[in-house]
Amino acid sequence: MTTPDKQVWNFGAGPSVLPRAVLEQAQAEMLDYQGTGMSIIELSHRTPEFQALQDRLEADFRRLLSVPDNYRVIFVQGGASTQFSGVVYNLLASRRAQQLPRADGAATPVVDYLVTGGWSSKAAEEARKLGADVNLVVDSKKTLGAYRGVPDASEWRLSGERAAYVYYCANETVDGVEMRVPPQVHPDVPIVCDMSSDIMSYPVDVSRFGVIYAGVQKNMGAAGLTVVIIRDDLLERTPAADATTNTSPRFPSTYIPLMLDWTVHVKNGSLYNTPPMFSNYITALYCAHTLAEGGVTEMERRAVEKSTLIYDAIAASSGFYRCPVDEPYRSRMNIPFRLREEALEKLFLQGAEARHMRQLKGHRSVGGIRASVYNALPVEAVHALVAYMHEFRQEHQQ
Amino acid sequence: MTTPDKQVWNFGAGPSVLPRAVLEQAQAEMLDYQGTGMSIIELSHRTPEFQALQDRLEADFRRLLSVPDNYRVIFVQGGASTQFSGVVYNLLASRRAQQLPRADGAATPVVDYLVTGGWSSKAAEEARKLGADVNLVVDSKKTLGAYRGVPDASEWRLSGERAAYVYYCANETVDGVEMRVPPQVHPDVPIVCDMSSDIMSYPVDVSRFGVIYAGVQKNMGAAGLTVVIIRDDLLERTPAADATTNTSPRFPSTYIPLMLDWTVHVKNGSLYNTPPMFSNYITALYCAHTLAEGGVTEMERRAVEKSTLIYDAIAASSGFYRCPVDEPYRSRMNIPFRLREEALEKLFLQGAEARHMRQLKGHRSVGGIRASVYNALPVEAVHALVAYMHEFRQEHQQ
Repeated sequence: MTTPDKQVWNFGAGPSVLPRAVLEQAQAEMLDYQGTGMSIIELSHRTPEFQALQDRLEADFRRLLSVPDNYRVIFVQGGASTQFSGVVYNLLASRRAQQLPRADGAATPVVDYLVTGGWSSKAAEEARKLGADVNLVVDSKKTLGAYRGVPDASEWRLSGERAAYVYYCANETVDGVEMRVPPQVHPDVPIVCDMSSDIMSYPVDVSRFGVIYAGVQKNMGAAGLTVVIIRDDLLERTPAADATTNTSPRFPSTYIPLMLDWTVHVKNGSLYNTPPMFSNYITALYCAHTLAEGGVTEMERRAVEKSTLIYDAIAASSGFYRCPVDEPYRSRMNIPFRLREEALEKLFLQGAEARHMRQLKGHRSVGGIRASVYNALPVEAVHALVAYMHEFRQEHQQ
Repeated sequence: MTTPDKQVWNFGAGPSVLPRAVLEQAQAEMLDYQGTGMSIIELSHRTPEFQALQDRLEADFRRLLSVPDNYRVIFVQGGASTQFSGVVYNLLASRRAQQLPRADGAATPVVDYLVTGGWSSKAAEEARKLGADVNLVVDSKKTLGAYRGVPDASEWRLSGERAAYVYYCANETVDGVEMRVPPQVHPDVPIVCDMSSDIMSYPVDVSRFGVIYAGVQKNMGAAGLTVVIIRDDLLERTPAADATTNTSPRFPSTYIPLMLDWTVHVKNGSLYNTPPMFSNYITALYCAHTLAEGGVTEMERRAVEKSTLIYDAIAASSGFYRCPVDEPYRSRMNIPFRLREEALEKLFLQGAEARHMRQLKGHRSVGGIRASVYNALPVEAVHALVAYMHEFRQEHQQ
């Protein structure tokens, strides 16, 4: 068994740092899950042992986010990108959406998207490609010149109660833009939120949402699993379409591809087919760990502490470090910053690597530095980073 | 670290037994993947370390199955059930399919399905629900009264060159029906095969297929990943449809949902979005292990040895054990058998558990006993089972 001979700090944006205790338990149980004599990845998903794990996972998840009883929770494969399509299919099939008026010539009722970064942009694009009548409530890049915040609400172009849903991304991982409060919309319109990279980092009033989904690999598990929270009434549909109604004018395809259909997963307790066993396992361990550590309230306290340390270091650098994001929308999870030139950024990253600070490079689409400070990153890592930022500045400030 | 104090034999149908060496390596590296100081599940999928893993995985997989150069290999999420839809969307979008004639009133050209068990039945049903013009070449349950074999080729109803593809499942895991040789079809028609539960257990002439796909969790990896092998020309499409052509008469939805589109995964080297890191990792280790053990030729030798031991024990039991499957189609991977009454089967399973033989229960839809003897199951396990079968029969034969 190898043990790292140095303390490594993992600032990766996802997959990202996990609690040491979770990894140690996974290691200890790798050859023998709970006395079965088999690894968790050798067990059938139909065993009582795995069912118990799955039940604990859902119960702990519900407790962590105080999910109300009129919401279903499913765990599915395919990542958030799969839900870009899933949202469109499922919500346009909902009873409410099927009864909404449409614009002249539109294949579907209007769907409202707030585009505040790379991920919500992709989600809106997928809705358009699937044939939905997409309205961009907000297009930050167009209005602000870059994904650096959210235009003032006075500039939003909401469709009101005609919208089948309003979609936004709570935290744009690539750009570091976070909206921790859902947008104000017509009360009849369900809000859909991609919470992949800030779920579990603050308390959420789930009752304000129609749908919340999140890839688990940032703040609550191991890549391969996506959690979807759905308000009951949004699963209600008009009488099931059979194959012959596929050309129905109500929506280009009224039948939802099998594994994209949320009702399939709801009916089968997320076990319609074999789940990614190890991802479910790590996610269950991580959720239990988060509860034991004090839940999302404590996680929020830590997120504030860690992100403030870095934003303060940027603010105190006399412009040596620059965060491109407008202050009210600065993410507590992903903190992008730039130096005056790329060569210097490269040098900064080299020095960080030498100090065992890993995965600090900005997303390939935007460059620069990005420090992700997810729940499992200890505050010591941030102290180390801030000390290095100070030191590097002393050395290179002109 | 716990170590099982007893040798457990895992006869599970999937997820199922993995090579001990693979699990031990995963355990050893859990906290520190290849000296990175991070777990494999903490690494970004954009790191050179993970790219190297992914490259090795594809290279080893290609070598194991001698995949010709004119075939692409992708690794995707969602299980085989996701590919039930993927096959329909992608192949009906192919240039060849778009140019085929259709039956009067049919939304698509005809697609041929051989239904020989529960899985191919689900695949055909999904094609029908998606609006395809499905022709059942074979419907074993109807013709034979049960999924116990494959009707004689003289009874098949192939559509000839008009078919967009011919689909079959090489090994029906639930029913224990295996077709190791692809059906004889018109040479222009691509053959599509679900090889989830017998891939890697015999050499395959990939050039006879249009598409082969397999969930990895039986014979080559850990649940969460599906491999798809696609012949190049089947990825060629007529000019891309935009949203406005979604109601095109060529197919109910000409746009393929993002993550179901094979070309998206081909273009992005299977890394369009975050893969299920641990599944990729275990699959890479398992493929390397299979190569080191002698590849698929050696795996076939072992499969013949292990399955023959059990089938011989059934044959020598004077009817005490009965295998419901016709001899030419008996699976080398999943061996179902029955006893004269359910009470006795229950007793058999209890005795097996007491002897640390696990997961021998038949699928919930069919009952009875099912011994799965995948590649990673040592022949010692089969000797133990056969000895127990003999002992149990001595005690209970009337």
